[in-house]
Amino acid sequence: MARDIALNILVMHGPNLNMLGVREPNLYGLLNLDAINSKLQKTAADASVNTSFFQHNVEGELVNRIHQAYQDGVDGILINPAAYTHTSIAIRDALLATSIEFVEVHLSNVYQRESFRHHSMLSDIALGVIAGFGSTSYDLGLQALILHLQQHKKT
Amino acid sequence: MARDIALNILVMHGPNLNMLGVREPNLYGLLNLDAINSKLQKTAADASVNTSFFQHNVEGELVNRIHQAYQDGVDGILINPAAYTHTSIAIRDALLATSIEFVEVHLSNVYQRESFRHHSMLSDIALGVIAGFGSTSYDLGLQALILHLQQHKKT
Amino acid sequence: MARDIALNILVMHGPNLNMLGVREPNLYGLLNLDAINSKLQKTAADASVNTSFFQHNVEGELVNRIHQAYQDGVDGILINPAAYTHTSIAIRDALLATSIEFVEVHLSNVYQRESFRHHSMLSDIALGVIAGFGSTSYDLGLQALILHLQQHKKT
Amino acid sequence: MARDIALNILVMHGPNLNMLGVREPNLYGLLNLDAINSKLQKTAADASVNTSFFQHNVEGELVNRIHQAYQDGVDGILINPAAYTHTSIAIRDALLATSIEFVEVHLSNVYQRESFRHHSMLSDIALGVIAGFGSTSYDLGLQALILHLQQHKKT
Amino acid sequence: MARDIALNILVMHGPNLNMLGVREPNLYGLLNLDAINSKLQKTAADASVNTSFFQHNVEGELVNRIHQAYQDGVDGILINPAAYTHTSIAIRDALLATSIEFVEVHLSNVYQRESFRHHSMLSDIALGVIAGFGSTSYDLGLQALILHLQQHKKT
Amino acid sequence: MARDIALNILVMHGPNLNMLGVREPNLYGLLNLDAINSKLQKTAADASVNTSFFQHNVEGELVNRIHQAYQDGVDGILINPAAYTHTSIAIRDALLATSIEFVEVHLSNVYQRESFRHHSMLSDIALGVIAGFGSTSYDLGLQALILHLQQHKKT
Amino acid sequence: MARDIALNILVMHGPNLNMLGVREPNLYGLLNLDAINSKLQKTAADASVNTSFFQHNVEGELVNRIHQAYQDGVDGILINPAAYTHTSIAIRDALLATSIEFVEVHLSNVYQRESFRHHSMLSDIALGVIAGFGSTSYDLGLQALILHLQQHKKT
Amino acid sequence: MARDIALNILVMHGPNLNMLGVREPNLYGLLNLDAINSKLQKTAADASVNTSFFQHNVEGELVNRIHQAYQDGVDGILINPAAYTHTSIAIRDALLATSIEFVEVHLSNVYQRESFRHHSMLSDIALGVIAGFGSTSYDLGLQALILHLQQHKKT
Amino acid sequence: MARDIALNILVMHGPNLNMLGVREPNLYGLLNLDAINSKLQKTAADASVNTSFFQHNVEGELVNRIHQAYQDGVDGILINPAAYTHTSIAIRDALLATSIEFVEVHLSNVYQRESFRHHSMLSDIALGVIAGFGSTSYDLGLQALILHLQQHKKT
Amino acid sequence: MARDIALNILVMHGPNLNMLGVREPNLYGLLNLDAINSKLQKTAADASVNTSFFQHNVEGELVNRIHQAYQDGVDGILINPAAYTHTSIAIRDALLATSIEFVEVHLSNVYQRESFRHHSMLSDIALGVIAGFGSTSYDLGLQALILHLQQHKKT
Amino acid sequence: MARDIALNILVMHGPNLNMLGVREPNLYGLLNLDAINSKLQKTAADASVNTSFFQHNVEGELVNRIHQAYQDGVDGILINPAAYTHTSIAIRDALLATSIEFVEVHLSNVYQRESFRHHSMLSDIALGVIAGFGSTSYDLGLQALILHLQQHKKT
Amino acid sequence: MARDIALNILVMHGPNLNMLGVREPNLYGLLNLDAINSKLQKTAADASVNTSFFQHNVEGELVNRIHQAYQDGVDGILINPAAYTHTSIAIRDALLATSIEFVEVHLSNVYQRESFRHHSMLSDIALGVIAGFGSTSYDLGLQALILHLQQHKKT
Repeated sequence: MARDIALNILVMHGPNLNMLGVREPNLYGLLNLDAINSKLQKTAADASVNTSFFQHNVEGELVNRIHQAYQDGVDGILINPAAYTHTSIAIRDALLATSIEFVEVHLSNVYQRESFRHHSMLSDIALGVIAGFGSTSYDLGLQALILHLQQHKKT
Repeated sequence: MARDIALNILVMHGPNLNMLGVREPNLYGLLNLDAINSKLQKTAADASVNTSFFQHNVEGELVNRIHQAYQDGVDGILINPAAYTHTSIAIRDALLATSIEFVEVHLSNVYQRESFRHHSMLSDIALGVIAGFGSTSYDLGLQALILHLQQHKKT
Repeated sequence: MARDIALNILVMHGPNLNMLGVREPNLYGLLNLDAINSKLQKTAADASVNTSFFQHNVEGELVNRIHQAYQDGVDGILINPAAYTHTSIAIRDALLATSIEFVEVHLSNVYQRESFRHHSMLSDIALGVIAGFGSTSYDLGLQALILHLQQHKKT
Repeated sequence: MARDIALNILVMHGPNLNMLGVREPNLYGLLNLDAINSKLQKTAADASVNTSFFQHNVEGELVNRIHQAYQDGVDGILINPAAYTHTSIAIRDALLATSIEFVEVHLSNVYQRESFRHHSMLSDIALGVIAGFGSTSYDLGLQALILHLQQHKKT
Repeated sequence: MARDIALNILVMHGPNLNMLGVREPNLYGLLNLDAINSKLQKTAADASVNTSFFQHNVEGELVNRIHQAYQDGVDGILINPAAYTHTSIAIRDALLATSIEFVEVHLSNVYQRESFRHHSMLSDIALGVIAGFGSTSYDLGLQALILHLQQHKKT
Repeated sequence: MARDIALNILVMHGPNLNMLGVREPNLYGLLNLDAINSKLQKTAADASVNTSFFQHNVEGELVNRIHQAYQDGVDGILINPAAYTHTSIAIRDALLATSIEFVEVHLSNVYQRESFRHHSMLSDIALGVIAGFGSTSYDLGLQALILHLQQHKKT
Repeated sequence: MARDIALNILVMHGPNLNMLGVREPNLYGLLNLDAINSKLQKTAADASVNTSFFQHNVEGELVNRIHQAYQDGVDGILINPAAYTHTSIAIRDALLATSIEFVEVHLSNVYQRESFRHHSMLSDIALGVIAGFGSTSYDLGLQALILHLQQHKKT
Repeated sequence: MARDIALNILVMHGPNLNMLGVREPNLYGLLNLDAINSKLQKTAADASVNTSFFQHNVEGELVNRIHQAYQDGVDGILINPAAYTHTSIAIRDALLATSIEFVEVHLSNVYQRESFRHHSMLSDIALGVIAGFGSTSYDLGLQALILHLQQHKKT
Repeated sequence: MARDIALNILVMHGPNLNMLGVREPNLYGLLNLDAINSKLQKTAADASVNTSFFQHNVEGELVNRIHQAYQDGVDGILINPAAYTHTSIAIRDALLATSIEFVEVHLSNVYQRESFRHHSMLSDIALGVIAGFGSTSYDLGLQALILHLQQHKKT
Repeated sequence: MARDIALNILVMHGPNLNMLGVREPNLYGLLNLDAINSKLQKTAADASVNTSFFQHNVEGELVNRIHQAYQDGVDGILINPAAYTHTSIAIRDALLATSIEFVEVHLSNVYQRESFRHHSMLSDIALGVIAGFGSTSYDLGLQALILHLQQHKKT
Repeated sequence: MARDIALNILVMHGPNLNMLGVREPNLYGLLNLDAINSKLQKTAADASVNTSFFQHNVEGELVNRIHQAYQDGVDGILINPAAYTHTSIAIRDALLATSIEFVEVHLSNVYQRESFRHHSMLSDIALGVIAGFGSTSYDLGLQALILHLQQHKKT
Repeated sequence: MARDIALNILVMHGPNLNMLGVREPNLYGLLNLDAINSKLQKTAADASVNTSFFQHNVEGELVNRIHQAYQDGVDGILINPAAYTHTSIAIRDALLATSIEFVEVHLSNVYQRESFRHHSMLSDIALGVIAGFGSTSYDLGLQALILHLQQHKKT
């Protein structure tokens, strides 16, 4: 049944993204997180993909959520790790431990900002990376993730 | 007229991309460049966007083509600078000189490869960067570029 | 009314500062955290400044508290980020996102200690930095913060 | 009485170790965390040593648990800090603040992995370090810790 | 007698501080050096502390003045080493040779400026460091210095 | 005859300099390349010096032109290598191979720009370097080159 | 027969370990090398494991002994490479050439000492590493080595 | 037939090698490129190996020629990349894309020259490297290449 | 009056330049400082520009002279900072504090000398930099400075 | 006499090369050292060149053998320094002290291996370097050495 | 005459050495500068060598004194540059400009102190360097200097 | 008795020093090792100091000799570690283990040579260091060592 093969995707937002709209609007635009999630949810639904959403400011809770995703049989993760992009080996290890494929996205062009934002602890184990397009980065990332999972899971 | 405000986009491919399909298929997939260009051309046409395409192995000819794009009134560039990503100040200067907005794309996940591929001479002046999704990187990049140009040009 | 324009200041203490008095007394002196807070509270009250206090060992909870301060209309933060001084981009992003002005203080002279304590992720976005005077660092930081806020807020 | 001088040891596991058995079995073997703890508990009991166990994915909760160990009069800690090995100044400060002696263990040979795993924020303040022997690393670490504490505490 | 135990403090200003008011007002505010000295002198007098003041643009003359302070029995130094902060081993050696305790202050937030201003040759041998509060940095530094000297000298 | 000993100077312009006037006018001023060449030609003619001019965006063509200059008996080269300043070992080798003396000039003050523009692959083998005076850099460079060649060639 | 499958282990000691007891007792304890070897020999014998012992101050002789171990069919090596830990590619190559599995041990906590002792030329090709427990490091290393060899050789 | 299995080898010379004999004779000797090619052609012919030769100063044209070699079924390349040795990722990618085996040669001992000549972008993907023997480097490289190809192609 | 708007230029020479003619003649030529100053004075006078000259070996006296120039209303400075080029933040700060525009010149080609001479503390705040032409560097620098000041001051 | 002018060449093999055939056959091939020496001896004899051979695992004995070669009037050395390539200043000094010309060879392509094998302590004082061709590296090195010595000694 | 050939030696002491006896006695011993000079003067006189002495805390005055030494025909300088050892290019240039041979001495073992004291700006142009023997360093340096000058000047 | 308190000094020479007189005479002068030893022996005898001498090219044998010196009750060592200066942790450990005080000497000015000769593994644990005076370095080192030992041993 289609139901059996429906994809499950988890969208994860790292620290401070709950403040979107407040936080440095010149960098991230005016959209808030709910609006972004709604749009993603709708796009996914149109492709018969189930979505769940999670934002947290605590690194370890992001780790916990990845573990739960593994228990829940999530097929792929769309993640904007925000500040933890550059420092979190724990999130990297959670993704390695669960072997869930993921796409890394960033709202801002991280290469235009402080040099400590130029390196990611996750990029080399991601399917791919998208940065700089504001909330469109999420939209593109979702497309890429669905496309990849459909090509490698369907049967 | 709608015609007057139609967007013109140049798609540029850097060195060795003419060899796509031959070159390291485990990294880049089996698609050749013509197939990629055809798909992009069709997608753009559907959005009433004009496209032109250019591939060259000589750094200076890529510079020349960017200059010509400026003369032709090109609105945006979708570029996969390939090997020149990491070394070409000349291409950077051409993009700075002409102030044409551009999106940088890569077929492979450059962060999984040799360390000299982790740095780009162009990313900090790009609208955004997409890497790792094979030929889908181009598709996503085109979307992002069109969306951006429509939001900032139309009137 | 004076009430309307009364300043609200949040005093934040990073990880392990709940152990003050136990922890390395040769570095930090014998005062415990309650004593420090009481003195600060009294000094602030004398200047008709409201204070609230927060200590936590979890990086993300410090982020959460900064967000709440923004909701509460806090005017300034006096923060000793302790261990997170040197690694937390998340706290930096919380302070950037909320644009609350803050002063960074340290009990010990961080420049006399391990080299990884010589760099701060927060100093370049702080009003100023004070280090090395034991609990007096807090007293001086509070003075500086109140003075700055009074000069830039009053009326 | 023997009871009075019985040693109390806390075994701590850092982030993602709750996923043992799932996570990269080629690196860590197939044992899960409960099995490891049971074996350690039994070995300790044979030496009349009391043990308690703690695993958490949140850095700050590991800090909290070390503080509690200090309150509880724990004599020594056996810790596998996992991902936080390489980044946590907060855990380092908790161990410095409480002055509880500890042994650092790793399941995998960290020197065979990514370069960011070659440096530990804890090793220079540990009694000693053991890495690379799978769950045997814990067994050896417990032995070393008991031996050390017995030589320095008894009577 | 109170006279016998009165503290003597030397306030030292490094190169270009004679130009205060002229020099980069966006960084340092509009106060000139005489005004700063007057305020410090008054504050000190209120605490029965004697002050002397010295500004010079020649590194070696600052060294000479520190030597003289040793001959004169100065108890503490409040120093803004300005440009020599980052390069002067000679001033460091003068302070080491005389063992006079000192507080290091900076008008501007040095961490927001050129990277060569992020390191100080003096901080690790100072009592403490204060930076970023304009002329208030001096006021706070004087307080801290007097407090420290009173606690360690009196009787 | 004076004719026999007339000096021949080649003026070379690197990539993107054909776009002068368009490119970043805040950095380079409004003069275009023809105007610059005309002025140089005239100045040289006044000193009975023959000039030829060359601009190209392809690194290898700049190499070729230096080889041809050697065949033509050119006495000196005035070169603005632009982007290739910082990366071209090939141009360096061409200048070493032909042993033609040259002066290196830059329109902008390269030390105010991105750090990768602070190093030149050519400066240590040049007669001298002039940077930051807009088109005047060329005028000064021509003077210096003529003066040097006249002092070392005449008779 | 049990005899046929008895394990043979070589214990190797690098330079200056013949001076144990003399050398920096605060770092290494008072045990001399003979006492350490005797204890190891006894432990091994209890597990029906044959042992041989070798100490030398010449790097090349340690290489020679590893070669001989290969000829003799040694199953595993317990090595404290001492000073050569940090510099000897020759010993690394000998262990690679013979493919004899080995455990690396250190008496002192090398991470507390000079920075040049923090890197080992051998760790990434060892089964595992143990450091900081004085002569107990050897005891633990022997256990780990025997356990590993028994699990991978027996039958 | 022998003809069918005859090897085809392409000899490539990078930038400035057309100036051989002129360029720094103390480094490269007095031989010109034609003489080198003639000798190589003759040696190859004696071994029934077909040779073609190519020199160019434009990086991208060297890339093009490698692509053509792939189309022509060239078995191996003998290349002196000269200045592009140290900077060309494009040539590296061309060799990776076509998977043609190659030997890297240098006339001079690059380790005696400027430090930027000590690193090659090609060596790690070459069969082997020969440097320092003047034109003899080519002779040895050709031998090594023929020998390798004969051992791996014949039949 | 023309007199009112006459430009005033200060020519500054750093340490050891009083020894010109003695000092390393192979680097600097045989001209002494008086001859250089005379020529500059004459050139300036021809352009109705007033000049003053200053040489000192003490860093702080160069700082003092810049301050005085500010009091005197000097329009521009032509400076050869010599050894202080590479280390003096104090001179940099004096130039920043007074905002007097300046040109930096060097007799020798600093890029051919010890690596510590390749970096200047002043270049990024200079109008431009000229190096390598012996005393001609001063002549060119004076031209450039006068031209710049005339274009930006006159009227 | 021909005898008088016959060349004497010493072939030196560094540590672990006595294990050839055992050691990492995927890197070095299956040839053992005797076979390599025999082939070299025969090739040399055909060219009327005398050869001697030496392998040792002790750095200092390789130094001794170079000294002896000087006493014996050896004309050239063909050396594979193996592990000592990257660390031995003593062998470098022996070759400098005796001024015997030498060729450096490596069996494997050192640039494909660990980064510490990319640098040689000898290359910049060698005639030339050959790496990556298995035992053929020796054959080519012998040719190059004989050719060089014949061109510079004969008569 | 003996008089004609008598050597003249200048003994120079850098910053803070006037404080000898006060300054860090554990590093430098208890001797004051006059005692050191007296002993040197006597030793020199015994060898018929004239001596003069100079101490200053200003870098530029040390430069001036070296210039004067050149005018006075001083044959050699014995210098303890103290803090300026590590930073003064100006003193280096003075010694280069005058070509007076000199010996560099240090009271303390600079290699045991802060890492910024491990590098000297003068050592590579000195005859030799002596460090660590307290005032004996001067005695040895004087001997070495006299011996050298006698061997190279006499007659 | 004088005999009882006579000092015993060991003079050690590192690798290649047996070749003195042959080796790079421009760096080391023409003296051979026997002449140096004879002079030292005579000087020591005049001061009633016993001397022994040792030269070896094998690092481990130098270690052995230091151990033996400890057994023999040697009071001090005068050592020129030559090439091992820069790499030998083993010799450092031998000197630490035996706690014999030593002086480090070098014939040449190591700071004028290759950069890898600028760092010593021994200097920070030596009494002092002398470099650059040819064989006189030994003479001065012996003086310093005897003086130091007499001051700290006598009685």
